[in-house]
Amino acid sequence: MATHKLLLLPGDGIGTEVMAEVKRVIGWLDSHGLASFAIEEDLVGGAAYDSCGLPISEEAMAKAFAADAILLGAVGGPKWANVPYEARPEAGLLRLRKDLQLFANLRPAVCYPALADASSLKRELVEGLDVLIVRELTGGVYFGEPKTITNLSDGQKRAVDTQVYESYEIERIARVAFELARTRRNKVVSTEKHNVMKTGVLWKEVVSTVHGANYADVALEHQLADSCGMQLVRAPKQFDVIVTDNLFGDILSDVAAMLTGSLGMLPSASLGATEEISGRRRALYEPVHGAAPDIAGKGLANPIAMIGSLAMALRYSFGEQEAADRIEAAVAGVLADGYRTADIWSEGMTRVGTAGMGDAVLAEL
Amino acid sequence: MATHKLLLLPGDGIGTEVMAEVKRVIGWLDSHGLASFAIEEDLVGGAAYDSCGLPISEEAMAKAFAADAILLGAVGGPKWANVPYEARPEAGLLRLRKDLQLFANLRPAVCYPALADASSLKRELVEGLDVLIVRELTGGVYFGEPKTITNLSDGQKRAVDTQVYESYEIERIARVAFELARTRRNKVVSTEKHNVMKTGVLWKEVVSTVHGANYADVALEHQLADSCGMQLVRAPKQFDVIVTDNLFGDILSDVAAMLTGSLGMLPSASLGATEEISGRRRALYEPVHGAAPDIAGKGLANPIAMIGSLAMALRYSFGEQEAADRIEAAVAGVLADGYRTADIWSEGMTRVGTAGMGDAVLAEL
Ligand SMILES: CC(C)[C@H](C(=O)O)[C@@H](O)C(=O)O
Ligand SMILES: CC(C)[C@H](C(=O)O)[C@@H](O)C(=O)O
Repeated sequence: MATHKLLLLPGDGIGTEVMAEVKRVIGWLDSHGLASFAIEEDLVGGAAYDSCGLPISEEAMAKAFAADAILLGAVGGPKWANVPYEARPEAGLLRLRKDLQLFANLRPAVCYPALADASSLKRELVEGLDVLIVRELTGGVYFGEPKTITNLSDGQKRAVDTQVYESYEIERIARVAFELARTRRNKVVSTEKHNVMKTGVLWKEVVSTVHGANYADVALEHQLADSCGMQLVRAPKQFDVIVTDNLFGDILSDVAAMLTGSLGMLPSASLGATEEISGRRRALYEPVHGAAPDIAGKGLANPIAMIGSLAMALRYSFGEQEAADRIEAAVAGVLADGYRTADIWSEGMTRVGTAGMGDAVLAEL
Repeated sequence: MATHKLLLLPGDGIGTEVMAEVKRVIGWLDSHGLASFAIEEDLVGGAAYDSCGLPISEEAMAKAFAADAILLGAVGGPKWANVPYEARPEAGLLRLRKDLQLFANLRPAVCYPALADASSLKRELVEGLDVLIVRELTGGVYFGEPKTITNLSDGQKRAVDTQVYESYEIERIARVAFELARTRRNKVVSTEKHNVMKTGVLWKEVVSTVHGANYADVALEHQLADSCGMQLVRAPKQFDVIVTDNLFGDILSDVAAMLTGSLGMLPSASLGATEEISGRRRALYEPVHGAAPDIAGKGLANPIAMIGSLAMALRYSFGEQEAADRIEAAVAGVLADGYRTADIWSEGMTRVGTAGMGDAVLAEL
């Protein structure tokens, strides 16, 4: 049985709490001979800064390059509001994305039927919702240069950010979106602001070209980012796959995730290109939710998004379909049995904390 | 009685249809001696391009500078998908905003109690919702340079957009937000991505400074743009005033407007600075909704956002409180009587088209 090199980066806030539950699931898989892991663990974000003055150490980066997959909890929190910009917690995550070239961020927004009532939206609008947001993750305004703050002569300052996209970056993310749509409902909505931004003009042009050349069987629609935000609220079930840039993807995927009522349930994958020689594809899996400093340390966080991220790693990086199925079935079972953390709780259900949910999943396994 | 110089720019799509109804209201006010207008009218957007090859003519710009206020319908549509970038319909609107320095875009997201059921959200989440989004409108990625597409040697292209903010631009919009909050529920949420963008760092810093110096009585909270998008869906009533940049404001205000179920009802104001000598403040009023090419020409559009924009102009540019009150009361009456265009229709209500809604408002006046 292959041993999978897995790097755990719990990070900050509830990241450490939900990672603790994943470790128990990993232990269970290992001891039942369902999958075999070589686990490394390290710090990222504020935790890394507190330990070494950097949001991720060079040793941790070396482990990331050596790993077959990474599980990350979450980074950030008010504690680090005043650290130097280059050392802020988020810079650790951004460095991982950029250096490992994890350009394709897949963010599912799925409404679990049992949780439809936890949504802000009316039940009929979200029941059965299954949108996949494919977000470009290594380009755009996140990484473009110049990115500066300059002091002007009169006490004024000028801040500049630069959004840059080259055709190849749009091509490769478009291909990922079209390929994924073919495994789903065969529909892609591409989102940008071509009426205001040149990157939007190029985005639309390249997506259309890739579509015409290789994916004419997939339905393609272009929506402006503001309209897409509206449509997500109005009628989210119109969407199958949404492909968009780094910044719009950040906002729209959060909106979409929140719509489902299942925010604490949603895992995500950030994938690199498949390497020519090794055939390996770098990958990082993390919950869609953040570090949630307001509830951190209270044992309230829902560990299911993090556990689901392990299932995604098993499926997409390790080829361990059976172990992935087992975990996902256990999660479904626990929900059917009525266990709920605070974020998804509703009248009549059994309220549990982070560890309680972990217990329930282990019992179900 | 002062005569108000009002420029009408119907624009494209449903813009012309809803403007036709406003003209009838203007005629009524005039003939009943409630307000006196000197009306000019011109083209903007695709309509202007079709007529003169520009999205707004120099004559129209001259009229805009001469006017006390502008009413604009909407611009854009698929018909102009292939016009040169500099001449696209949106460029007409963007030129008006920039040249007239209309830096403060006020976008209310109000849920009319009678329409709460038209919202995607559960009634209890939107009933009584009254959020005001204060969007910076003359800076950021909309206007920063460079803004280019370059051909690279290998058939690849590189597109660049630049987001620039100087302190004074953030200061003046922050002041507008704090002043408005004082007339409301005294709470401002400032939204940016300081964890990723330098403009976000400066934004947060300047808003905090303005707050500490002059508005410490107003409650101020900072939210990241992605979290703000989530919170708008989760619990929109937590918000009073949201202040944000041009691009985030574009998306978040559309999301917020759609939440209310009243999208076709919402007017907006774009205001300039008060001029030192004349004491005049340039202003443009337009519906929050767009040109809606899918329903254009069918007589289905809701004219209330456009009629409400006239009411806002009467109140904020012309000091005609009584006329503004009359219009707003008429709109409220029409809704109470059950008249509904398609966008806000629900079971048991009287379905009307654009002109039918105009008839109803006039009858109520
Ligand atoms: C933590 C932050 C840098 C990050 C982002 O903006 O991409 C987060 O919001 C996300 O969506 O993963
Ligand atoms: C028409 C377009 C240029 C405009 C914008 O992006 O600002 C519109 O979406 C708006 O919000 O007024």
